[in-house]
Amino acid sequence: MDLTSFITSVLTSFVIFVALVLLFTWLSRRPGNAPVYYPNLLLRGLDPWAGRGRGTRSPVGWLRDAISASEPDVVAAGGVDAAVYLVFLSSVLSILVYSGIVLLPVLLPVAATGGALSTIPIPTNKSAQSAQNFSSIERLGMGNVPEKSMRLWAFLLSVYWVSFVTYFVLWKSYKHVSNLRATARSAPDVKPEEFAVLVRDIPRPSPDETIKDSVDSYFRALHPNTFYRSMVVTDHTKADKIYQEIEGHKQKIARAEVVYANSKTESNTEGTRPTHRTGFLGLIGTKVDTIEYCSEQIKELLPKLEAEQKTTLHEKQQRAAIVVFNSRSAAAFASQTLHAQVYDKWTVMEAPEPRQIIWSNLPRKLYDRQIRQCVVYGIVFLIVVFYIVPLTAIAAVTTLENLEAKLPFLKPVVEQPAIKTVLEAYLPQIALIVFLALLPTLLMFLSKQEGIPSQGHAVRAASGKYFYFIVFNVFLCYTLGSTLFKSLTTIINHPAEIVNMLAKSLPGSATFFLTFVALKFLVGYGLELSRLVPLIIFHLKRKYLCKTEEEVRAAWAPVDLGYNTRIPNDMLIATVVLCYSVIAPLIIPFGVAYFALGWLIARNQILRVYVPSYESYGRMWPHMHTRIIAALMVYQTTMIGFISLKKFAYASVLVPLLPASIIFAYVCHMRFYPAFAKTPLEVVVRHDLKETPNMEAIYTAYIPPCLKPDKLEDLDAFEDAQSRATSRVPSI
Amino acid sequence: MDLTSFITSVLTSFVIFVALVLLFTWLSRRPGNAPVYYPNLLLRGLDPWAGRGRGTRSPVGWLRDAISASEPDVVAAGGVDAAVYLVFLSSVLSILVYSGIVLLPVLLPVAATGGALSTIPIPTNKSAQSAQNFSSIERLGMGNVPEKSMRLWAFLLSVYWVSFVTYFVLWKSYKHVSNLRATARSAPDVKPEEFAVLVRDIPRPSPDETIKDSVDSYFRALHPNTFYRSMVVTDHTKADKIYQEIEGHKQKIARAEVVYANSKTESNTEGTRPTHRTGFLGLIGTKVDTIEYCSEQIKELLPKLEAEQKTTLHEKQQRAAIVVFNSRSAAAFASQTLHAQVYDKWTVMEAPEPRQIIWSNLPRKLYDRQIRQCVVYGIVFLIVVFYIVPLTAIAAVTTLENLEAKLPFLKPVVEQPAIKTVLEAYLPQIALIVFLALLPTLLMFLSKQEGIPSQGHAVRAASGKYFYFIVFNVFLCYTLGSTLFKSLTTIINHPAEIVNMLAKSLPGSATFFLTFVALKFLVGYGLELSRLVPLIIFHLKRKYLCKTEEEVRAAWAPVDLGYNTRIPNDMLIATVVLCYSVIAPLIIPFGVAYFALGWLIARNQILRVYVPSYESYGRMWPHMHTRIIAALMVYQTTMIGFISLKKFAYASVLVPLLPASIIFAYVCHMRFYPAFAKTPLEVVVRHDLKETPNMEAIYTAYIPPCLKPDKLEDLDAFEDAQSRATSRVPSI
Repeated sequence: MDLTSFITSVLTSFVIFVALVLLFTWLSRRPGNAPVYYPNLLLRGLDPWAGRGRGTRSPVGWLRDAISASEPDVVAAGGVDAAVYLVFLSSVLSILVYSGIVLLPVLLPVAATGGALSTIPIPTNKSAQSAQNFSSIERLGMGNVPEKSMRLWAFLLSVYWVSFVTYFVLWKSYKHVSNLRATARSAPDVKPEEFAVLVRDIPRPSPDETIKDSVDSYFRALHPNTFYRSMVVTDHTKADKIYQEIEGHKQKIARAEVVYANSKTESNTEGTRPTHRTGFLGLIGTKVDTIEYCSEQIKELLPKLEAEQKTTLHEKQQRAAIVVFNSRSAAAFASQTLHAQVYDKWTVMEAPEPRQIIWSNLPRKLYDRQIRQCVVYGIVFLIVVFYIVPLTAIAAVTTLENLEAKLPFLKPVVEQPAIKTVLEAYLPQIALIVFLALLPTLLMFLSKQEGIPSQGHAVRAASGKYFYFIVFNVFLCYTLGSTLFKSLTTIINHPAEIVNMLAKSLPGSATFFLTFVALKFLVGYGLELSRLVPLIIFHLKRKYLCKTEEEVRAAWAPVDLGYNTRIPNDMLIATVVLCYSVIAPLIIPFGVAYFALGWLIARNQILRVYVPSYESYGRMWPHMHTRIIAALMVYQTTMIGFISLKKFAYASVLVPLLPASIIFAYVCHMRFYPAFAKTPLEVVVRHDLKETPNMEAIYTAYIPPCLKPDKLEDLDAFEDAQSRATSRVPSI
Repeated sequence: MDLTSFITSVLTSFVIFVALVLLFTWLSRRPGNAPVYYPNLLLRGLDPWAGRGRGTRSPVGWLRDAISASEPDVVAAGGVDAAVYLVFLSSVLSILVYSGIVLLPVLLPVAATGGALSTIPIPTNKSAQSAQNFSSIERLGMGNVPEKSMRLWAFLLSVYWVSFVTYFVLWKSYKHVSNLRATARSAPDVKPEEFAVLVRDIPRPSPDETIKDSVDSYFRALHPNTFYRSMVVTDHTKADKIYQEIEGHKQKIARAEVVYANSKTESNTEGTRPTHRTGFLGLIGTKVDTIEYCSEQIKELLPKLEAEQKTTLHEKQQRAAIVVFNSRSAAAFASQTLHAQVYDKWTVMEAPEPRQIIWSNLPRKLYDRQIRQCVVYGIVFLIVVFYIVPLTAIAAVTTLENLEAKLPFLKPVVEQPAIKTVLEAYLPQIALIVFLALLPTLLMFLSKQEGIPSQGHAVRAASGKYFYFIVFNVFLCYTLGSTLFKSLTTIINHPAEIVNMLAKSLPGSATFFLTFVALKFLVGYGLELSRLVPLIIFHLKRKYLCKTEEEVRAAWAPVDLGYNTRIPNDMLIATVVLCYSVIAPLIIPFGVAYFALGWLIARNQILRVYVPSYESYGRMWPHMHTRIIAALMVYQTTMIGFISLKKFAYASVLVPLLPASIIFAYVCHMRFYPAFAKTPLEVVVRHDLKETPNMEAIYTAYIPPCLKPDKLEDLDAFEDAQSRATSRVPSI
């Protein structure tokens, strides 16, 4: 890519970005759009244009707000997970800024005066201008330094500088996140998950007792003073179906009533009672009065639900349970202590938040979980390495001829010459795009299949898988290009070869990645900030579909940050920028811009837009930390190879960096990780509760909505339904 | 080795064995030898010739007793560790018996009629008899089966049979040992270690409080209802030295009094008061009256000890402590729960038994421990792989010429021609023998340097190191011989080569290992059973040195089983027999004899001789289990190589065995290991104590003897001495 096209591309992206930011400034000031640009504030009952958000009517108000918000504000708005995500962005930003401060002033002059590229003969058929361009970007990189030059010392020491900056920043960040997590976890407000543990792999009870009975007697024996109540997980799909049906009918009634009320105009005081057809999608079948029909349906369904609830509670008990204790420290003790003599029975772990439980995974057995995990890892490995194979196969099958044969009704459309050309050219690409768009969903599905008990954990697992996919496919495959697969046998026989191959291919792709980073942050962040798609969808829905207040609220109901795709994408940029930081230092300002802008916009979105759907208290951090170190090690390895290629005898001076990184990762993991995997006792008792919490509320939080008794007093009845022992021991 | 010399060697060993057993039968019946042959019984206050041991006067009484003793008897006599060692022996025995039942009748005929060896031309200069011998042992092994023969299927399926027998036996044994451990741990008698936890990495306290104060306030805050008392570890070397001095003087007085009383004969009614010299070894210096002198010394030392105790308790506090809780389950909870937010502070683990604490290791910091472990592992790796190098160097330095130059007084002795020849020939061998004799001690020392807190753990660590040493050096090095080191570069570049090399070298060493196993069990067990060396030492000591009852008791004080060398040696035999089981099935009867006899003799020694010096409740088992699987995998790997060498196309049918072994090891580890590393709650509460235990006694058990207060009531004063806070919160 020559200089002109590079500048053109960056400039175009920049213009789009500015346009989008202006659009955002204009749109976000219109009150009608508030649910799109301030849903988080609205849900927390705050006025978007009052209080500390008062500056938002000014064009740069969002900027000022994003910068001035404190960390507790962020935690209040988006939870600890959002705050940790911001720490991640600012950590990478600090690494790049500290690196850039030294690398840019030192390496650029050293590289620019290296002069290796000017001695390369210009290939034939190239104009003088091309040669000029060739040197203007690439002359500022390491490619311009001659072999065996003593200038290489500057690059070599830069690798050390970047590595130590990374260690320093990561250590401070891990400490910060650890404290953030501890502070949030020791907050005095009562969270149900702090009083509960999840019990899995419950052994088969004796025939004269239910699972509930065996759980109760087991835990009462082991925790005589602290056991409160237990709730056995049930297979409540059927009850849930009936419950959802009732809720659907209730919504329909609400909607019909609004429609009916609106139809009572002056000319038609009676109004028209809304009707619908009972058949498929309301399109066929007999026409009925909606309100009457639905009310009748509900009346019919309610006893059904009640019967189903009873059956579910008593007969569909699964071999997993939530056990509630009467104090935080009792739950912490229980979740960390080995209960049974063999590990595949009565496995105990911290209970997930009620809202993020994946019920269907709870009863999975230990060995089942292990096997599922192995199978899923195998599938993901195949997807990461060979995803292009099935795509090619699909592309081959879905040629136009095949499509026409299978779906003859498409023929008249497809036979149009213009459409045909386009389709023939783009069908494989479309297949690829569809696949890439579906990939995060697929990975999320696979992660859930592992038997993970909570949403947050599944997101972390999916995020890891996606990270491997994009780093392998975008970074490695683009850099190495076709040579990767051609010489796969070479790599297997001589694993060290890959370092040389990477080192040889890296400089050629520098400009591509410069453009890639620029495009990513300018257009990507522009779209993110302006929220054009949710805006359009919201307005369309509100205009044509929504009748009741509730429906309008559902139309703008904000989603969460989507860590499972967001973090891997950021990590990809971090990996790319780190790897090129010394080879082509010019990439550092782009990286700084990416993470600085990312930080700003993420703060804005967290404070105003996204609403967290779960809270894991920053458990994502150890993963991010490990992956930054992994990126650093890829960087260190390629640099060893790259400097060796320059026939520089001291390249081996870099080798100690690799064990240093491993030791650093190990020490961090040893020191900080346990507090992320378990609850430290220190944190539990920091603000011990003065008064006893409302234990009924804690217990009820874990009852799925479709099984929830109407009144709190019915809790005993709920427990009795699960138990066979009629004379229940009273639980205090 | 030809047949004659093989038979000669085995027969000689057998004769020695029979002679030793007869000697044992004769010697053990003499009452004067009871302290040598029945020390365990004596210590437990049982009469060796009464009760259930009544048959011991008959020559085979010991055999009947060893067989008829039940497992609880073994646990009562030698603890769970001894019982687990017997389970290990019987497990290997079962594996070999089950294997032999199938392999011997099937493989011997198949091999004998293979006829591959008879087609090999007899080398020149060999008589017909040699050729005859060649076939008689080796014709019964796999070497006699021709290449590509379908007979190899029998050998291949045998490998499967042996593997599955091993899985089956190991699974049952692990289950058995796990139950054994659980039963022993849930016994109702009060053990101090069940109420205590060991706290390490205590952070530096604030200047106005001692470490003791900070421990107390920290644990009282986290465990308000269950904390009993804490004892900070102190550096009591100096106090201990004074204490030992006093004890020494007390012993001297006792001895002198006996000597004095004996000297009062009829002719000399006054007696002679015993005297000694105060200088080096009692040889030089002024002559003093022993009783008077020692009493005076004690009088002088007692106030010194008291002062030193005070200083030690208050000023030599280390950053580790033993914290005692008032219930078993509280201690179990505390030992398994993460306490501090960062893992390198307040690390908590189960307390070791008081008698096996290695005090000097307790205050070592987490990072210190990690670094020490790395360094020790590095040293052990070097010792295992390159131990021959320093030995050669030492041998070169300690030539006779050098010795003469350094130690001229040796010259007249060394210059004798006969002595000179012997020394010159044997000096390197002597160096090797001395090194091998010192090796277990060296490995034990190294293991203790890792910062391990308990004796039992150090023994396990040393045992592992010794296992690697002997398997690598005896098995691999003998089998591969010089080819191993010559082709070390080949192995590094092509790791798969080692399989072929092993496979090629194995059959040649079969006869050697047959003899090795026979020698090992016949002579080794003979010596073990007859206890000739302890017998001689005991009689010599009693006759010439011992004066008081106490000294006689010290002379026969039995040691423990010495797991750190015993188990690796047994494992070596197990590895050898497993690896040759299919190649030369004749080794199986030898292996069966080794483990059967070993089991019998170990039972006899455990029931009557050895006294355990610590109890780890079978924590050695997981290590033995893993190492048997490792031996199995070495066996499977060599068999794949060996059958491939026979150009048998189906050799790859064996490959699935390797992942099967790994999965088996993983499942066992996952299912059973946690109950060995931690205390399961189930086990703790199985027999909950009816009455409160004597908490003072539990606490006192952890006070080192040199610091122990004279009366139990002084415990509060002992605690106060460690604390700076004068108004101590009363502990209930």
